[in-house]
Amino acid sequence: MLEEKKSIIRLSRYKSVLQRFKNMGLVKVFSDNLGDAIGVVASQVRKDFASFGISGSKKGGYQIDDLLRRINQILGKDEVQEIILVGVGHIGKALIEYKRFELEKMKIVAAFDIDFEKVDSKSEIPVFPLEKLEEFVKKNNIKIGILAIPEIAVHEVAKIMFSASIKGILNFAPVRITYPEGCFVRNVNLVLELEHIIYHVNSLKN
Amino acid sequence: MLEEKKSIIRLSRYKSVLQRFKNMGLVKVFSDNLGDAIGVVASQVRKDFASFGISGSKKGGYQIDDLLRRINQILGKDEVQEIILVGVGHIGKALIEYKRFELEKMKIVAAFDIDFEKVDSKSEIPVFPLEKLEEFVKKNNIKIGILAIPEIAVHEVAKIMFSASIKGILNFAPVRITYPEGCFVRNVNLVLELEHIIYHVNSLKN
Repeated sequence: MLEEKKSIIRLSRYKSVLQRFKNMGLVKVFSDNLGDAIGVVASQVRKDFASFGISGSKKGGYQIDDLLRRINQILGKDEVQEIILVGVGHIGKALIEYKRFELEKMKIVAAFDIDFEKVDSKSEIPVFPLEKLEEFVKKNNIKIGILAIPEIAVHEVAKIMFSASIKGILNFAPVRITYPEGCFVRNVNLVLELEHIIYHVNSLKN
Repeated sequence: MLEEKKSIIRLSRYKSVLQRFKNMGLVKVFSDNLGDAIGVVASQVRKDFASFGISGSKKGGYQIDDLLRRINQILGKDEVQEIILVGVGHIGKALIEYKRFELEKMKIVAAFDIDFEKVDSKSEIPVFPLEKLEEFVKKNNIKIGILAIPEIAVHEVAKIMFSASIKGILNFAPVRITYPEGCFVRNVNLVLELEHIIYHVNSLKN
């Protein structure tokens, strides 16, 4: 699992480097190029690709377009991924405005909040009351949700999301979510990230 | 390094669990309690604490207050950590408003932006032009910065931050920053996090 996790992260990084090579007019790329760009050895690049069933020609490297197409398939980028957001606070709003998602074929299609003042079904990304989540998710077959709500409500809302058939959650609250078999949660814990940096910077002083 | 990294992350998690125990009125805690709460074995908890020089009494576990005080020291929480922010876009604004930082003794003391329309030295968290960064950082002895700007400007701005003696950066742009010896960067890559979830959810279908 840990190895698989790392190889998916590398796959995302290869993709981003490949996109940049492509923008520079390159057509072919070698495992050495990709390894140098993301900081791994060339054999790791070839191993990663082989593990996802991607092979290059021994001599000629990889065709960038082919490689991008395959990686995008693996990462689910051959179609737009529809995502819901729960919690339209400051972080939620920033995510709605985050232009990068669209470039990456990710789209927040609706948001939900318990605060009726935030509800606005007419805005570009409609905001619905939380009670509407299950119906919306099932009707539109959404599998992925972002959770940007205060810690105290996280467990209850995550439960609602999973029972509405959401399979993957990106959670911004500083609390770990237990999740049913077959589901998946990633946590973005901003406090923990900063603590980590503070620890390192402080240990430099000593 | 990887092991150390993991133990710091666990330390942050112990802290958050301890705070909750304390709020519930508990005075003592045992390595089993902490292990259960964060999902590691009790011996790992004791090992982690020992590696940071924290010892408990064999029979009696740990005093929660003592433990919190020591962990807060290690994580640099015995004083407020002053942080600067570069980039006052949607994510930057959400970070300025993020209440949790204050609870955790982290404070964004100033923000910087190249866009003069965003400059506002009179607001609660003043926003200065980027040219003022070096002067401000040196004068106030700031060591930690958050970078929430578009990818294209990241390398240049990171260089400015490091040369102003910033030692640690939390970077939100989807690009890796190379950093000088003795400095430290953590990346929060929202696209990569979502790709990771999408990959897992899609592999469930197959």
